[in-house]
Amino acid sequence: MSEPLRGALIIGQSGGPTSVINASAYGVIRTALDCEYITRVYGAHYGIKGVLNDDLFIMDEEDRSELDKLMYTPSSALGSCRYKMKDPSVDDTDYKRILEIFKKYNVRYFCYNGGNDSMDTCNKISKYMKSVGYECRVMGVPKTIDNDLYGTDHCPGFASSAKYIATSIMEVARDTRVYDTGMVTIIECMGRHAGWLTAAAALANVYEKACDFIYLPERDFDMEQFLKDVGDCYERNGNCIVAVSEGIHYADGSFVSEAKTSGTDGFGHAQLGGLAAMLASIVKERLGCKTRGIELSLLQRCGAHVASGTDIAESFASGKAAVEAMIAGETDKMVGFACTRGADGYKCETKLFDLSDVANFEKKVPLEWISDAGNDVLQGFVDYAMPLIQGETPMHKTNGLPDFANLKKVRA
Amino acid sequence: MSEPLRGALIIGQSGGPTSVINASAYGVIRTALDCEYITRVYGAHYGIKGVLNDDLFIMDEEDRSELDKLMYTPSSALGSCRYKMKDPSVDDTDYKRILEIFKKYNVRYFCYNGGNDSMDTCNKISKYMKSVGYECRVMGVPKTIDNDLYGTDHCPGFASSAKYIATSIMEVARDTRVYDTGMVTIIECMGRHAGWLTAAAALANVYEKACDFIYLPERDFDMEQFLKDVGDCYERNGNCIVAVSEGIHYADGSFVSEAKTSGTDGFGHAQLGGLAAMLASIVKERLGCKTRGIELSLLQRCGAHVASGTDIAESFASGKAAVEAMIAGETDKMVGFACTRGADGYKCETKLFDLSDVANFEKKVPLEWISDAGNDVLQGFVDYAMPLIQGETPMHKTNGLPDFANLKKVRA
Repeated sequence: MSEPLRGALIIGQSGGPTSVINASAYGVIRTALDCEYITRVYGAHYGIKGVLNDDLFIMDEEDRSELDKLMYTPSSALGSCRYKMKDPSVDDTDYKRILEIFKKYNVRYFCYNGGNDSMDTCNKISKYMKSVGYECRVMGVPKTIDNDLYGTDHCPGFASSAKYIATSIMEVARDTRVYDTGMVTIIECMGRHAGWLTAAAALANVYEKACDFIYLPERDFDMEQFLKDVGDCYERNGNCIVAVSEGIHYADGSFVSEAKTSGTDGFGHAQLGGLAAMLASIVKERLGCKTRGIELSLLQRCGAHVASGTDIAESFASGKAAVEAMIAGETDKMVGFACTRGADGYKCETKLFDLSDVANFEKKVPLEWISDAGNDVLQGFVDYAMPLIQGETPMHKTNGLPDFANLKKVRA
Repeated sequence: MSEPLRGALIIGQSGGPTSVINASAYGVIRTALDCEYITRVYGAHYGIKGVLNDDLFIMDEEDRSELDKLMYTPSSALGSCRYKMKDPSVDDTDYKRILEIFKKYNVRYFCYNGGNDSMDTCNKISKYMKSVGYECRVMGVPKTIDNDLYGTDHCPGFASSAKYIATSIMEVARDTRVYDTGMVTIIECMGRHAGWLTAAAALANVYEKACDFIYLPERDFDMEQFLKDVGDCYERNGNCIVAVSEGIHYADGSFVSEAKTSGTDGFGHAQLGGLAAMLASIVKERLGCKTRGIELSLLQRCGAHVASGTDIAESFASGKAAVEAMIAGETDKMVGFACTRGADGYKCETKLFDLSDVANFEKKVPLEWISDAGNDVLQGFVDYAMPLIQGETPMHKTNGLPDFANLKKVRA
């Protein structure tokens, strides 16, 4: 291992926020502030854009008591972006600019807190810095409610959204079953290509049957089979609750929600939404029953008031591990988790993964965790996810409302 | 006051459920179980339908530890109904049947736990029993997230939904402000005729500006003014968050959401979602910015995990007061609250209101609590509502998930 470098650290946040992304960032920030080798800790305003725009916050200027609140404050406190870096061999303008800023502030440590695309950004920056001989250590700190990052057992952010979804579905199930006149309820969860979040609906079934069917994008969707599933259940129970992923698609690959597609999200992904309402309308038309579509929308990724205590602690640990690894000489890695779930309970340790292995791969729900009929999630997933949602948030409230962090954001 | 009657009690739940309706019911049930004059405590399955169908649960058979969980279990545990009783002078079939059941089980106490229509049901049953000389005491135990019951300071259930809405809007506000590319977010709250719940968005602004505009059904909605409000705000801040009541209507009384029933949004776009999706689509078209519509849907009335501790305690107290009042000889009343909010803090006491005064009136948000421009809610509302959302739920969790009550439901 190389000697620790003496210099500044930049932490940036990227991509869609989560309930606990700030806990990860705080793991980086607090560890860096306490580290003798790190001379200054900067927060990049709006992710890599903050570096490109020379728009950095001095984290050393923040009050520690306010920073502490990052442990339960949802959504990227430093600001985020969806900015796809070009390949440096095609256009190295951005990279030159980043190098310039790194030199200006003597940045020797760079942490990027994001999902798939952010790990790609990390990877490109790291390789560029090496190619020009600028000594700098780069570490990816994962976050994504989508839980689709390769290598790591799970991703910070997933468990809190999973807990939000399971809790909400348990509550909605109670609500929709109060009348003797039944209803079909369609609950739409996020997840374009990977069904992890929607699978969390299975956690709502651990103590009582709350969700009747779960459809993930890992399996082709068949509208007629879906209508038969729902119709049979409704006939049997006078009620039916369904969880669907926004990304469910037909066998030809086209999204079920395609009719609603409008605009793109800056990375070129089709922007989805409105699937629940659409399916509710189709069910109503075909089965003639009362229906309701519920889109969990942003609520599922910012519902910090019901975040998982385990997720918060692990998120912080991943940020802390990132700084410690860089100090120890590591670079070009993402901090992930290696976990065991055995007779002696759940154990989780941080582990480093090569950025080049992580970037641009998507990890999906294993097919063996999905029922043969493709309309339910099996015990394998429950065993996997259950330990992750344990524990409650330490969120402090003032007068019954969340007391979120408000940073001073002193510009560098 | 008359002597206590010796006989059974029936408690029924009616109308849309809330997060705390079971806390009210438990106030009735526990107090009745502990009362020497009450020989048996029955829960009516699906509200008054349970009486009509002779479908009653023996609450005496339930385990006390399971009943205790009703304090934080959302949605009518006994089942609910939306059943409008005919006027007995028009058709007294139902009343004769109720009398028959009351006689069969020697029912001398009847508590009905619901909103406006339920108080009407209570009122009619009470008057009928008097008219036929059957000695029976009848008490309404209010619940409604709509907070529109006449007389009482506020209604059990409102505060927990208000707390859910304020908390969620604070979280969503954090989420929608992470990018430097802005967005207009429309959040739709329940409330067809009264804007109390939507007004709760103002609570999200107490510690930080989370919600820019609030539109209630108490004021006529003007689409052009709305687009100007939102457009100006978006131009100024690069972001805008709006809370709208599902019941907002134009000056001619027609609901803004009405167009969607015809399958278009009034601007000719096919529209599957509700009001929020429709307004988001109109804003997108007119202002050309990114938009998102979020319908809080059932989540806002069943989100027991973030219920107000004050609401839970008051709900229980109202149920308890109902039984105590009946034992003391009262009948034909609804238990409400009389509150003071002074220099020495918030004080709330139960108070009885005449059912005939309560039934079929709707209490709206006072116009002096709404801004002149009709797009915001003023401090008067905040002072009114803030004390109601204090305190947290005692919800017990097992493995990170709510441990809701599961009653044995032993049939009479």
